[in-house]
Amino acid sequence: MADNNRTEVSSLGEFGLIDHLTKNNEIRNSSTVVGVGDDGAVIDHFGRQTVVSSDLLIEGIHFDLSYTPLKHLGYKSVIVNLSDIYAMNAVPTQIVLNIAFSNRFSLEALDEFYEGVYAACERYSVDLIGGDTSTSQKGFIISVTAIGEVAPGRFVKRSGARANDLICVSGELGGAFLGLTLLEREKKIFMETGSQPDLEGQAYIVGRLLKPEARKDIVEFFAEAGITPTAMIDVSDGLSSDLLHICKESNAGCVLYEDKLPFNDEMKAFAYKLQIDPTACALSGGEEYELLFTVDQADYEKIRSNPAISIIGYMTGSEEGKKIITRAGNKHDLVAQGWNHLGK
Amino acid sequence: MADNNRTEVSSLGEFGLIDHLTKNNEIRNSSTVVGVGDDGAVIDHFGRQTVVSSDLLIEGIHFDLSYTPLKHLGYKSVIVNLSDIYAMNAVPTQIVLNIAFSNRFSLEALDEFYEGVYAACERYSVDLIGGDTSTSQKGFIISVTAIGEVAPGRFVKRSGARANDLICVSGELGGAFLGLTLLEREKKIFMETGSQPDLEGQAYIVGRLLKPEARKDIVEFFAEAGITPTAMIDVSDGLSSDLLHICKESNAGCVLYEDKLPFNDEMKAFAYKLQIDPTACALSGGEEYELLFTVDQADYEKIRSNPAISIIGYMTGSEEGKKIITRAGNKHDLVAQGWNHLGK
Repeated sequence: MADNNRTEVSSLGEFGLIDHLTKNNEIRNSSTVVGVGDDGAVIDHFGRQTVVSSDLLIEGIHFDLSYTPLKHLGYKSVIVNLSDIYAMNAVPTQIVLNIAFSNRFSLEALDEFYEGVYAACERYSVDLIGGDTSTSQKGFIISVTAIGEVAPGRFVKRSGARANDLICVSGELGGAFLGLTLLEREKKIFMETGSQPDLEGQAYIVGRLLKPEARKDIVEFFAEAGITPTAMIDVSDGLSSDLLHICKESNAGCVLYEDKLPFNDEMKAFAYKLQIDPTACALSGGEEYELLFTVDQADYEKIRSNPAISIIGYMTGSEEGKKIITRAGNKHDLVAQGWNHLGK
Repeated sequence: MADNNRTEVSSLGEFGLIDHLTKNNEIRNSSTVVGVGDDGAVIDHFGRQTVVSSDLLIEGIHFDLSYTPLKHLGYKSVIVNLSDIYAMNAVPTQIVLNIAFSNRFSLEALDEFYEGVYAACERYSVDLIGGDTSTSQKGFIISVTAIGEVAPGRFVKRSGARANDLICVSGELGGAFLGLTLLEREKKIFMETGSQPDLEGQAYIVGRLLKPEARKDIVEFFAEAGITPTAMIDVSDGLSSDLLHICKESNAGCVLYEDKLPFNDEMKAFAYKLQIDPTACALSGGEEYELLFTVDQADYEKIRSNPAISIIGYMTGSEEGKKIITRAGNKHDLVAQGWNHLGK
């Protein structure tokens, strides 16, 4: 926070603050009929179905401002919700953002946060259409609701996977978990010794945690290639936990191949340095915002043509259980060790 | 909270908790295509425009659990958002609810909160279609997003009021403010002396604060009577502040008549007992969730036919300022003294 140039938020008042924060807000979607500044926003999705998703992000629970720049936090707050919309095979069009903050936050700090919000809106062509600001007794609280659209009946739930469908995932896994591990370790060292963080050469994993992207490209690829996944979810709790959601909702089993899991080289090197198994990072590490989905085997060639997608296993009947086959060829039960915020 | 029968939330896990809280959830609108339990919900508003509004409610800022029963809080959390949808002249159809809470809250406490949420959903025929639960470091945090629908172009903004339009308000004003004053006073006495609250004969004002309703009936009346207000807002910050919003957004002035303000007798009696001016309660008291709107003079007879609506003034040109004419016939400037949460 820029303490050398600090403007108290209270100097603007609530409505002045909203005016200030939204004065450069741009509208990009013709479906946005009424945006910020009224009791509600109005959206025109004639002939399309509307998809809605909402998340609450709380300082100290979902993020740590000691190593999260506010601009990145603003960006990520939007991304995590857009990711949910993409996970329905829909295209996000609008967001509503509410924030609450204590008097520890200056206007300059809020501006930084909104810079990230607007950067995400621009990159993903979504409109900020409403929201309010208020005080909190403690910390920073963010609520984002994302709205999107999908052609009638083309949305993809978690429940449509069938035996023999291919299990696919976008991008690479495990990076965000290691980024968190690294930042938490450096924070601890800093608090104990005052040493500045050593993030040398770790841009990839730190970026995976602090500045994730949503897989717009994958949903666009589905549309172009004429693929409709049978089930889809975004990887927010860890591959195991999220795949088990698909199995449960689809009443199906699965076989996952350890040697098919996609890893980044930098991520693997850092995992080995910390003596952590990269597979464990992928299975249990959340906040990846990759898309995990199942497709019919008939789509195999199409899927294979996209280098951003890995085929990591196949669905089975529910009686066959949920299994992972290790590099050594052993079969184990797949267990959820996701990021259960309630269990903390 | 029922401490004699306390179930730790952690015994269910996050997903178990959501299952538990939503197991009796009913879907009432055919526009709800996919509800709770996926990455997003899907809504089908073909041929209608979608209206969205969202609010964040934080313990210690927006509500005080020492005198707010959790069931009432759940009910009110829904109402405040439905009220915003009605204030757009739209009909609410769905809500998304996120909550975060510390380990001070038992499963029984959350059940009470959800009882109120479901009661509001039932009364207003809206569907709960999504949301998540997480922990907070401190207190109870609620985020509600309400979604509604309106015939194309029939939504009402704050910005359409013109000179000579009638200013109207539903119901009665000032009660919620007095309810808050009473409960805060009794809380202070209890903390200082241990005396139990004396709410005898104050059911009306306490009810106005703790169990407000949204004015569904007024929006239904508009549809039946063929009235489209020129501007509308719900009274959440106080009549002055909210009317000044309409003036600002409509670039207009107004004249309000003190002797036209609608008061409840019980409210007036209590105000006089506390030596507070009922008019001040109406002008500055928020959280009324009445509808404040302007209509063309041609609608005068129709408006007059509805006993739940009071005509309290008229709009003027912006150069004439924003005025209130007192009972004594004096003209004063109308000033906002709304509930500015940031100013606290």
